[in-house]
Formats: sequence, structure tokens, C-alpha cells
Amino acid sequence: MSWKIYLSGEIHSDWRDKIAEGVRAVKLPIELSAPVTEHASSDDCGDVLLGAEDQSFWKDHKASKINAIRTRKLIEEADVVVVRFGDKYKQWNAAFDAGYAAALGKAIIVLHDPALTHALKEVDAAALAVAQTPAQVVDIMKYVIEGKLL
Amino acid sequence: MSWKIYLSGEIHSDWRDKIAEGVRAVKLPIELSAPVTEHASSDDCGDVLLGAEDQSFWKDHKASKINAIRTRKLIEEADVVVVRFGDKYKQWNAAFDAGYAAALGKAIIVLHDPALTHALKEVDAAALAVAQTPAQVVDIMKYVIEGKLL
Amino acid sequence: MSWKIYLSGEIHSDWRDKIAEGVRAVKLPIELSAPVTEHASSDDCGDVLLGAEDQSFWKDHKASKINAIRTRKLIEEADVVVVRFGDKYKQWNAAFDAGYAAALGKAIIVLHDPALTHALKEVDAAALAVAQTPAQVVDIMKYVIEGKLL
Amino acid sequence: MSWKIYLSGEIHSDWRDKIAEGVRAVKLPIELSAPVTEHASSDDCGDVLLGAEDQSFWKDHKASKINAIRTRKLIEEADVVVVRFGDKYKQWNAAFDAGYAAALGKAIIVLHDPALTHALKEVDAAALAVAQTPAQVVDIMKYVIEGKLL
Amino acid sequence: MSWKIYLSGEIHSDWRDKIAEGVRAVKLPIELSAPVTEHASSDDCGDVLLGAEDQSFWKDHKASKINAIRTRKLIEEADVVVVRFGDKYKQWNAAFDAGYAAALGKAIIVLHDPALTHALKEVDAAALAVAQTPAQVVDIMKYVIEGKLL
Amino acid sequence: MSWKIYLSGEIHSDWRDKIAEGVRAVKLPIELSAPVTEHASSDDCGDVLLGAEDQSFWKDHKASKINAIRTRKLIEEADVVVVRFGDKYKQWNAAFDAGYAAALGKAIIVLHDPALTHALKEVDAAALAVAQTPAQVVDIMKYVIEGKLL
Amino acid sequence: MSWKIYLSGEIHSDWRDKIAEGVRAVKLPIELSAPVTEHASSDDCGDVLLGAEDQSFWKDHKASKINAIRTRKLIEEADVVVVRFGDKYKQWNAAFDAGYAAALGKAIIVLHDPALTHALKEVDAAALAVAQTPAQVVDIMKYVIEGKLL
Amino acid sequence: MSWKIYLSGEIHSDWRDKIAEGVRAVKLPIELSAPVTEHASSDDCGDVLLGAEDQSFWKDHKASKINAIRTRKLIEEADVVVVRFGDKYKQWNAAFDAGYAAALGKAIIVLHDPALTHALKEVDAAALAVAQTPAQVVDIMKYVIEGKLL
Repeated sequence: MSWKIYLSGEIHSDWRDKIAEGVRAVKLPIELSAPVTEHASSDDCGDVLLGAEDQSFWKDHKASKINAIRTRKLIEEADVVVVRFGDKYKQWNAAFDAGYAAALGKAIIVLHDPALTHALKEVDAAALAVAQTPAQVVDIMKYVIEGKLL
Repeated sequence: MSWKIYLSGEIHSDWRDKIAEGVRAVKLPIELSAPVTEHASSDDCGDVLLGAEDQSFWKDHKASKINAIRTRKLIEEADVVVVRFGDKYKQWNAAFDAGYAAALGKAIIVLHDPALTHALKEVDAAALAVAQTPAQVVDIMKYVIEGKLL
Repeated sequence: MSWKIYLSGEIHSDWRDKIAEGVRAVKLPIELSAPVTEHASSDDCGDVLLGAEDQSFWKDHKASKINAIRTRKLIEEADVVVVRFGDKYKQWNAAFDAGYAAALGKAIIVLHDPALTHALKEVDAAALAVAQTPAQVVDIMKYVIEGKLL
Repeated sequence: MSWKIYLSGEIHSDWRDKIAEGVRAVKLPIELSAPVTEHASSDDCGDVLLGAEDQSFWKDHKASKINAIRTRKLIEEADVVVVRFGDKYKQWNAAFDAGYAAALGKAIIVLHDPALTHALKEVDAAALAVAQTPAQVVDIMKYVIEGKLL
Repeated sequence: MSWKIYLSGEIHSDWRDKIAEGVRAVKLPIELSAPVTEHASSDDCGDVLLGAEDQSFWKDHKASKINAIRTRKLIEEADVVVVRFGDKYKQWNAAFDAGYAAALGKAIIVLHDPALTHALKEVDAAALAVAQTPAQVVDIMKYVIEGKLL
Repeated sequence: MSWKIYLSGEIHSDWRDKIAEGVRAVKLPIELSAPVTEHASSDDCGDVLLGAEDQSFWKDHKASKINAIRTRKLIEEADVVVVRFGDKYKQWNAAFDAGYAAALGKAIIVLHDPALTHALKEVDAAALAVAQTPAQVVDIMKYVIEGKLL
Repeated sequence: MSWKIYLSGEIHSDWRDKIAEGVRAVKLPIELSAPVTEHASSDDCGDVLLGAEDQSFWKDHKASKINAIRTRKLIEEADVVVVRFGDKYKQWNAAFDAGYAAALGKAIIVLHDPALTHALKEVDAAALAVAQTPAQVVDIMKYVIEGKLL
Repeated sequence: MSWKIYLSGEIHSDWRDKIAEGVRAVKLPIELSAPVTEHASSDDCGDVLLGAEDQSFWKDHKASKINAIRTRKLIEEADVVVVRFGDKYKQWNAAFDAGYAAALGKAIIVLHDPALTHALKEVDAAALAVAQTPAQVVDIMKYVIEGKLL
């Protein structure tokens, strides 16, 4: 029983590292994956890889589609999709990923501060767990995989 | 050839009315639908219908799930999902709907101001059209249904 | 926007009638359906229609499969599956229908007394609403269809 | 040809151990899996992992959803779902799993005493085999995998 | 609740007429359909419609594919597939239709004499009912649709 | 039994009209549909409806996606997809539609001159009929629907 | 690129052995599988494994369902389904498997003497190749896997 | 995270070799696959493997279906389908593959000269990237897999 977990959403804090450390520390049979988290690469990949665009709309468009080659494969292969919302930026891509994962029937864990609860109520309603810290995500996966608490 | 269009997203401007008027004016064979757009009802439905909750998290949770009974049926039956983003609020439910519709293979039209282009690039990349005004949405549907311009 | 609702589960109280009356009273565009609710017919249909069996196992088997011709079509066509659990009998067919509906992605409303909450926790967890009375089911559907609270 | 078998249902007798021993004894290429079978962990996981709830309904709800992260993956990956019903408790989760597995088109083996035949007739009707002992389940799998009797 | 029933298999007896008469007699809301039952048309349609072939293999091939335009649509739209086996000819197309319907999850009723039971055991095992007379098929559908025996 | 037929491909001859006339002449219960067949509208719709592009690539891109709103719905709803190849132009959109329809399991009829047989062999191999004239398409549908020759 | 091939149908000649030898001789990366080919085991497995039945119908029924645990998994996992028809017996299970495989979109190779062409025309029409000898099946797979003739 | 990429389309230039070299040079975890690219084998396989046909239509038909055994498996297993269009020949099989891949929801990269943009606009509209050189395809995959630019 090995698990694939896709870590979607916020790229400005170290929550992915904390989950990765936690997973390693308790030696869970989990393969973690993520979108491109380097902001500049993610924004510029279309222009760099396929030629510069004059219009920012098409620059964004080309980049987003290339990023989607990665994102869709990883979400489709994932057993669990963790979606993290921070307190800054619109983060519509995170909510988009959550909706995409929900329609595919993926197990979703949402990770956010209680202050965002009302704004995220539709996303939380589609989740199997709503956590506040990366450590809780690791604990949930440890329990789910090993089948007992502590 | 009749069409079902679901109008997702922003509930604080009259964009749905404008699309409805436009559709009526040109007599298109379109059945429009929408989520519950009365904010208070949408927020309170869980408590009112099934009993009040002490915790706001569970109040939101119950409400969102009841709203999902409506939302999911309408998205699943839609030929086209129009997703509108305004300049206020997080609107994560709109992006969630877009992701949900994308995974179901629905035709998506996103409706937003150019100022939001960069923040919405992943959503736009999953769409078949990105419009700026309700009139454009009506024009697109007129063309798509009637098969010619003007 | 018309709705199909399948009423699964308990056949020893008049909860289906109450929902039907409620739906009629508020004139909702709902088509209700149900399994065969006449207990003797449901038990004996195999023997009566296709010849008597010596073994009760096969009598039950033939009957259940014939009943499944009806049940599966109705669940597959339903927008919403209401599953009622009473305080008597095993009612495993109700829980089976709930699991079947959940795997098909149907909207599920569970209807039961709070006394059964712990025993039904896995079923409730797959539902979009957990009601205690037939009137609540009608109220939920009225809200979901009409889009506003009273 | 390796097989994945999910063992759903009753957690108060040692039937899973007997199947595991039988599988080992005849060296079948089978990977067995199961839900969380430690009752207390299964009941308390929501409160322990994500914080205590005041209402027992939400305690159960949180726990069941976390358990579903495990359960759904294992059922979806299984080639065969064995569902065991004992003579005590409601065991609605077992019947729910059977319905879920049936809708996914899984091969189902039901394991129960003949005394439960009438109450389980809808579940049995969806199965490819109805066994009375763990040894029979092992024998069936041995035959199915090796392709001959004895 | 209207039903679509596809009548597959034997074309040398009047079983389809008997079912049609029975359905009319009890006024069931059933739409019956069938493959092309005129033997010569079914065999020659390829040559007649698209030009004669020298090789009988290709004559048969062209005809079968044209017939499949009709057959597949009708099976895919059917709620119930009745498959009739007579005592003559190979009737492999009937067994093929049964397998096709089984993989689509259709409710299957097999209609044959007990003398064919052993040869048809795999087909019968995929069915929800095994009848011996057209009248039984009508009776089953009457019960399934009306929900009670006589 | 009503049929939906999508007429894909060549837009420079009157083959669609001939099929429409033939269908009307023999009063078949067929609803015909087609992509936008007015060349200029099809090419310019993106620029006209959503604003002019500087780059021809993006002009084409916007137009093609808007056209896809129509095309995909019609192919997905079709029972039969007729794909016509003429002797001029690349007509890659026709072959694309054929592949799209094939993956969806649609019945495909290809319509082309024998001179194109070798170049179209992969498309023909996915079809249930290969016709040379619009009249043959009408004849095939007449036979398929009415169930007998002449 | 490894391949799974399921060998369905006739169990009274050594065609499976010939294909296995051919595959070994040219060292193709193919995993072959088959139903239970020992006739007595296949017929008696229900009675032996789960207790004897009085009625031959139920003996056959129990056996066929147990065999289906094996058959369905192997067909669902197969890349290619080879279906062999001999000149004796009804072989309805072979045609059933072909229909089942066709509905799942599997590549089908039918293997039979030309004398059976007319009776098998619907099965052949669903196949990607119709072979007459086991050696041809091996040659086809060698070409398909290695990508060149000789 | 390993990737499967199917290289569809033009067989008269060395673009597949260039992609293979590029993938090897940067050591990407990619498994490349392709249709049969030896023209004569692809054309003659039906006649050589299963006997010569008199009619060129059936020669092509048999060959194309045998080739489809390979092609469909590889497309269905692919994460990414690269479709190359050259400046010669009709290449309808390439466009067919693109449509087939699009309907399956595969990530598509189209590879062609800008001169073909208008003729390929429907194919490009279904793609996540449109490249002009094999090196760009390699660069895109390097970025998509490694998650950063250079």
C-alpha cells in the first residue's frame, strides 16, 4: 500500500517542506508531488520555451497550459490532494485544483487557518479533512496508512 | 439544439440579469441556471433547515453541502459553464466550480476584467473563451448556436 | 429544472407518503420513485414470476435480482437519493443503496433519528444532508430547487 | 497475476486473521487490506487528529471522513471485496461498502451465517460468491487464481 | 418512469411479437426495440447499400458493421436487454450482445429453454432474471414497473 | 427511436444539403447538425466576438476554441458522426473530429472518393461504414432506422 | 512496452499451448492468461467450494459466478483479447467474452476456421484482426510489438 | 514520476530520433513510443500476416486495424501525445490520433512549422503546447518534469 499525494496551492511558505520532513521522519510510504513552485519559472515558461509574446494575456496563457501538462498528470495519479490556502493573493489556481480533484473523486485535505473558513466553505465541503497545520496532514496520513492512532 | 448554461461565480453585480436579458432579446434556445444567489440564504440554509450549529465551521459546512445538491446537478447537466470573477472577495467557490467543470470536460467561458488576467491564468487556460462583458457571452452563444456572425 | 428523487430504505412507516404530500403541497417539480415497498411482493416475486424454489437462499436470490432491475435503474436516474433508516430490522439494503449511490456520485440525503447517528456515521459521511424528519427533506428540496429560504 | 483483496465488515471476530493465515499457508499471490479495525482509533481519529468536537455527530462525521481516505482507496484498488457480516451490531458500514463496491463493478464475496440470508438478500444478489467460513473464501481464491480444484 | 427494452437474439420464432402483445395488453410504459430481424436484409445490407463484394468474408463484414450502427445505439440506450436463445443455429451474436450489455452494466433477462441451461451458464450468471417464456418476461416487467404482484 | 447525426468535414461542396434533402424525402426521424460551415465566420469569430489579435496564431486559436464550444457538444450528443473528405485542402479538422468521435465510441460513417482510400485508411478502419455518395449515407440511415432494405 | 493477452474460448484443442510456445520462441514481452480450462473444475467449482446444489441450474449458476471472479479481472486487465471458436459445442461463453471485451474497448483478435465466418460475422466485425491459426496470432503480436515485419 | 510519451505523425523526417537524443542527453525519466514507422511494413502488414487481398480497400483496412492494436494501446497509456505534421502528404492519421487523444483527455503537444498554423488551428486549439522544433518538445518536457527553467 503506497500512496501518492499531490500538494497544491500556496507557494510562499514552507508548508511543503514541513510535510516532506514529517513524512520522512515517520517513514511513510508516500510519494509527494507538487506543481512548479518556483514563481518566475511558472510565469515565464511559455515565453522562454516557445518564444516571447507581446500580449501578457497570451504569455500567461502559454505558460499556464505548459504548467497544466505537469499539474493534470500529478492530480490524476494522486490518491490524496492536499490544497493549501495562505492569507495572501487570490490563489484561484488552488481552488481550481480542488474543484478539479473533487470532480475526479480524489480524497481532498484542505489546509488553512480558521480565519479563512467562511471563504473556503465550498472547498472544505468537498474535502475529507480540513487541517490547520502541516503536522496534522502528516498525522492524518500516518493514521490512514498505518491504521491506528499512536 | 437546445443549450443549458450554468452561471457560476460573483453574486454582487447584475451580470446574470444582463446575460438573461441578452438571451431573451435574441431569442436563443438557452436554459440558464445559477447557484443560490441570495447571500443570506446561501449562508444560513444549513442552520435554518436542519438546526442551528454552535460552531461556525459546521454551520458553513452544513450550508455548503446543501448548496452542493443544487450546484453539482446544474454543473453536471450544463453544456456551458460561465464563471464570473469580480474585483472583490476571494471567490474561491467560483474557481472551484471552474475546476470541477474542467474535470468534467465542460465548455467553460470565463468572464472577468483584464486586470485579473494574471491571477486567473490557470482558470483561463482551461476555458474555451475569456470574455470581459456579459454582452460578449451572449454574442458568443448566439454565434455558437446560430452558426454565423451577425 | 426538474428533479428525480429516489426514496430508499425503511418500508414500515409512512415517511414516503409524508414526503410525497409535502412535495405536492409546495408544488415542487420532483418525480419521486421508490423500490417495491409491498413486503410480500418483494419477497415472493422470484417464486411467483419464475417458479418456486426449494431452497430459501435461491428464493431470496431470484427475488432480489428481479427487484434490482427496478432499483438500479431508479438509482442511476436519480438526482438525489434519500435513504431512510428506522429503528427496527437490519435494513442492510438501505445501506447498500447508499453505498451504491455514493459510488455513482449521487447527492445523498440520509433520514434517521439521532439515536442512530453513531451506527450510521459512515453513511452520513457520504451524504450532503442528514435529516431527522420527512418535512426537513421537503424543506431542503424546496430550498435547493427554488434557491431561497422562505 | 497478483490480486488485491479488501476485507470489509465485522471487526469483532478473527475472520481476517484466518483468511490471512489461509492465504499464507497456500502461498497465494494476494495482497490483503482492511479498514482500520481498532475500534477506538476508528471512532476517535477525528477528535485526536484535528481537535475535539462538542457534538457527537461532528465527532463521528470527522472520524468517518478520515477513515474514508483509507477505505475508498483500498476498495477502488481491490480486485475482490470480501464483506463479512456477524450476528451483532448494525454493520451498516459493511453493507455500504458492498454497495459502493457493487457500483464500481468489483467482484464481491459475502461471508455470513445462513441465519442472515434473508436480511442480506440484496447484498448477496450483488455478489459473485456467498461463503459461510473464512476457509471457503481462501479456497475460492485459491481456485480462482490457480485455475483448478485441488 | 418509462422503460426501454432491447430484444436481442433468435429471429426464427415469434417471441418478440408475444412480448409486444403482452406489453400492449397490460399497457406498460415500455418502448421495445430490436436488431434488424429480416434475415436477408441483415445479411445483404452491405452489398446492397455500398456495392457487392467478391469475398464472402468482406460481404459479411460490411453488413455486420452497418447492422452495428443500429444495434449498439439500441443496446446503449436500453434499460433492459432481453436475450433469447433458440434451439437452432450458433446464435453467437446473441451471446455477443449479452456480453456487450453486461460490460455496460445493463439489466439482462435471458430467455431460453431449460435444455440450454448448462451451455448458457456464463450468460445466465450475468443476468438479473432467466425466463423460459415470453409471458414471463412480460410479467417480470409488469412487476418491476408497477411494483407489486398481481 | 430518433437519431442525431453530426455532419463533419468538407465545407466546399453541397453534400450536407444532399443528405438533408434525402433525409427529408424519406421522412427519417433524424436531427442533423454541423459545425459552422460559413468559412469567414468560422475564421473570424474570435476577433469579431472578443477583439482583434495581432498574431494570426492567436486569432486562429481564439476562433477555434469558440467553434469547439459548438463542435464538441454536437459530437458528444450525436449517435452517428459522418465525416466527409473532399479532394482539396488539408481537412485536418475532419480527421481530428473522426478521432475524437472514435475515442467516444460513436458510430462513424466516412464519406469520400475511392481515390482517397489509402490516405484515409486509419480513419476508415475506425468507421462502421465507408460511403462514396451522400445518397449512400441516406440509404444506410434509412436501413439502420427502418430495419429493412427497400 | 509489455502486453497482457487473455486467451478466451475453446478448451478442447491445444491452441493456447501453441500460442504460448510461439510467444516464448520469439521472446515477446507478453503475459498470457486464460479462464479455467479444466472442464470438470470449471463445472464443479461451485458445488465443491460452497456445497452441493440439488438443482443443476443453481450448480451451474454458482460455478459460473466463481469463474467470473477470474474471467472479469483478466479481461479488464488485458490489452488484447484473443477469442477462439472451434467447430464443436455452442461456445456461448466465448462470444459473451468477445462482447464484454468489445464494450470495454479492448483490442480483439478472433481465431477460427473460415467455415465459421458467416456465423461469427458480428464477432469478427468487432475485432481488429481475424486469424485462422495460432501462428498468425503470434505473428500479429510480434509485428505489433516490434513494429516491423520480419 | 515517470512519463510515457507517444510520438504520432510524420514518418519521413528524423524528428523522433532528435527527441529521443534530447531526452537521453538530459536524462529524463521518459519512455518514448511510436506507431510502426517503417512505411512498407505498416502498409503491407495485413496481407503479409493474414493473407493477400484482391481489393486495395481491404488490404488497407486489414493493415490499419492491425496497426491500431499497437496505436490505441500506446495512446491510451501515454501521459503526453506529441503529434508532428510535416509539409507533405495528407497525414490524416496524425490528425485522427490528435482527436483520439483529445477525447481521452491526454496532454497534447503539436509540432509543426508556422506555415501550417491556419490549417491546423483546430488541432492546435486542443493542445497544451504548440512547438516548432523537436528541441522545444524536449525543453518543454524537461521543464515539466524537473519543475524549473534551466
